Amino acid sequence: MKKGIFITFEGPDGSGKTTVSKGVYNKCLEMGIDVIYTREPGGIEIAEEIRKIILDPKNVTMDSKTEALLYAASRRQHLVEKVKPALDEGKIVLCDRFVDSSLAYQGCGRHLGIDEVWSINNFAIEGFMPTKTIYLDISAEEGLKRIESREFKDRLDQETTQFHIDVQQGYKQIVEKFKDRMVIVDASKTVDEVIDEATKRVLEIIHAQG
Amino acid sequence: MKKGIFITFEGPDGSGKTTVSKGVYNKCLEMGIDVIYTREPGGIEIAEEIRKIILDPKNVTMDSKTEALLYAASRRQHLVEKVKPALDEGKIVLCDRFVDSSLAYQGCGRHLGIDEVWSINNFAIEGFMPTKTIYLDISAEEGLKRIESREFKDRLDQETTQFHIDVQQGYKQIVEKFKDRMVIVDASKTVDEVIDEATKRVLEIIHAQG
Repeated sequence: MKKGIFITFEGPDGSGKTTVSKGVYNKCLEMGIDVIYTREPGGIEIAEEIRKIILDPKNVTMDSKTEALLYAASRRQHLVEKVKPALDEGKIVLCDRFVDSSLAYQGCGRHLGIDEVWSINNFAIEGFMPTKTIYLDISAEEGLKRIESREFKDRLDQETTQFHIDVQQGYKQIVEKFKDRMVIVDASKTVDEVIDEATKRVLEIIHAQG
Repeated sequence: MKKGIFITFEGPDGSGKTTVSKGVYNKCLEMGIDVIYTREPGGIEIAEEIRKIILDPKNVTMDSKTEALLYAASRRQHLVEKVKPALDEGKIVLCDRFVDSSLAYQGCGRHLGIDEVWSINNFAIEGFMPTKTIYLDISAEEGLKRIESREFKDRLDQETTQFHIDVQQGYKQIVEKFKDRMVIVDASKTVDEVIDEATKRVLEIIHAQG
């Protein structure tokens, strides 16, 4: 039985991760490559319900560790119900964000520590890591500039700026920690250029695994 | 500042845990002792929402590890929002079930392993353990007999019987692992006798800490 290929897309806010991963997915479809596109919670009912609790604006008292455990729970269910079955059928799965996001956002953005957040996530994924990860590399300055241009400026107060910087610094450590898995793509170029480059790298991954 | 006292009640199904812990609480109140009674999710909104997902009968596809992560998330929020603030005020907190329940039920009942379930729970509680734990000791046979007498017999099929036995065996290991914290009460006696004995032990704990 052919084993599937699991490719995740990661990068700090403003790196264009969602646009690029969807762009790569469409390019693959145009080329007749049978790929699946997903992101947590990915339509999995239990994972959707967990996500609702995380994102509910009325849950202002939510502790950072509660949040990290809920992300891990949602990830587990999405992995078991959607990603693994597709990979078991030999499919190619493109996933917008996975475990590295928790390491960067909860581990560094919320200062829980990469190792601590890794431990609960490894309980959830049981060492089941992506084949490769497309890392959209962007400087903190450029990422912040892009967020600023697309969002209401009053949301980008001092605290959020620091949060984004911490997340970006976190990603740097994670890229170093998992360098064999990381495929770094320069995300400072135009969207079309980044999609082209990321698609090229995804095709290389697929051919290398085939 | 006087530090509070955190006493949990544990025991397999059929040990009378809820009845006994509530009985001890009422005896303490009658004696004019200022105690708080709680159990997860304990009226904490985020923890209640998490609990709803765990108990929703339509969530039949829920993976055991997702369940364990959700219990840890609910525990974290209940601890941070309710238990810790009360203890910081010097209160005596009686809690029906805590981390040992996850070790016994998810660790042994669901076969995830005590050490694995401990690791995610320790992330949640950060080493914050009960002052003492009243363990209601009952044999698997006696516990099962009590469950059988109070529930529809068709729910107690072979699988559930094995689950209860595994949980009971799990509790035995946990009592051994944390023996300095455990206060063992013979739960095979009548409810009134068990409540009297457990109340006596709780008063001893309070006096020893005072």
